[in-house]
Amino acid sequence: MDISEFVQHSLGRWRSQRSAHHLAFSHFEAVKSTIDIVALSTEDQGVIDLCKSYDIDPHTAVSPFRMSWEGESDWDDNEVIEGSCILVPVPDPDTPNRGKLLRDQGYAETVAAAGNYHLTEDGTFVLVTEYDRAAAEEKIWFVNPNLRCRVSLIKTSNGTGVVTASFASEIRSLSGS
Amino acid sequence: MDISEFVQHSLGRWRSQRSAHHLAFSHFEAVKSTIDIVALSTEDQGVIDLCKSYDIDPHTAVSPFRMSWEGESDWDDNEVIEGSCILVPVPDPDTPNRGKLLRDQGYAETVAAAGNYHLTEDGTFVLVTEYDRAAAEEKIWFVNPNLRCRVSLIKTSNGTGVVTASFASEIRSLSGS
Repeated sequence: MDISEFVQHSLGRWRSQRSAHHLAFSHFEAVKSTIDIVALSTEDQGVIDLCKSYDIDPHTAVSPFRMSWEGESDWDDNEVIEGSCILVPVPDPDTPNRGKLLRDQGYAETVAAAGNYHLTEDGTFVLVTEYDRAAAEEKIWFVNPNLRCRVSLIKTSNGTGVVTASFASEIRSLSGS
Repeated sequence: MDISEFVQHSLGRWRSQRSAHHLAFSHFEAVKSTIDIVALSTEDQGVIDLCKSYDIDPHTAVSPFRMSWEGESDWDDNEVIEGSCILVPVPDPDTPNRGKLLRDQGYAETVAAAGNYHLTEDGTFVLVTEYDRAAAEEKIWFVNPNLRCRVSLIKTSNGTGVVTASFASEIRSLSGS
């Protein structure tokens, strides 16, 4: 599976159940959300701007997409969680199963970020993103075309401590609406 | 990583936070438990009996262990979840990163079972177990020596429908008590 296929499989509307484990105090958080993943053109102005901000030639980008989400957490019943961002994969020219994933600030993200991804031989997408004071590691894989799993770990920046481990099961919304 | 190393890394006491997503009705279940994993000898009578029941030479078994757990679910506050079973890896002679994992009925398991495991190149243990009317797929990996993640999927036996997706984050209990 290459990154284009992975993005292709991901397009659509997903109904997500996510559990976050806040490890230090053994707290469970439950989040239900709807996620929309829509393909973008490499000619899209947002894609071009994001590539430029990382000094990357937009022609090396592959299968850019927009991800939007809207949901509710049991942590804070009054807050609706919503956001949207543009994501742009830029495969390594020499090792096409690896590359960078650029993400714009969009709304609801605090900063833009560039992570490093790779696809394992069993089709798991692994993304590692370093921030100033933290690092995130994410694994996403398809169980079947209509179910994907996502495990995200938030670590302290030195990589030793894991603060939050979360798991999302995402079912394709067949209604499409 | 081979199966002996994987079992070796798993020995000890773990504090587990597990979330089960019951997909059909978007229900979240939260379980907290303590898991003990203890090495057994290949001379252990329980190990020998389990091998015999599957017509397997006990000398081909590697790193057998006992797993015990005790916990509480928010699904039913009054019920204490506890159980214990013996697990016996039997590597394939030709492909040592693959093999069978035998499990006895112990207490709290409804039936004995033999699953097929393999270890991926990135050190993930993958176990597929077929039952009469269901199949289970489990992935376990270490984030660091003191944190392991476990994703379990319960599928209908034809493999198309996933009924439950669950995720456990397991932290080594350093107190050892």
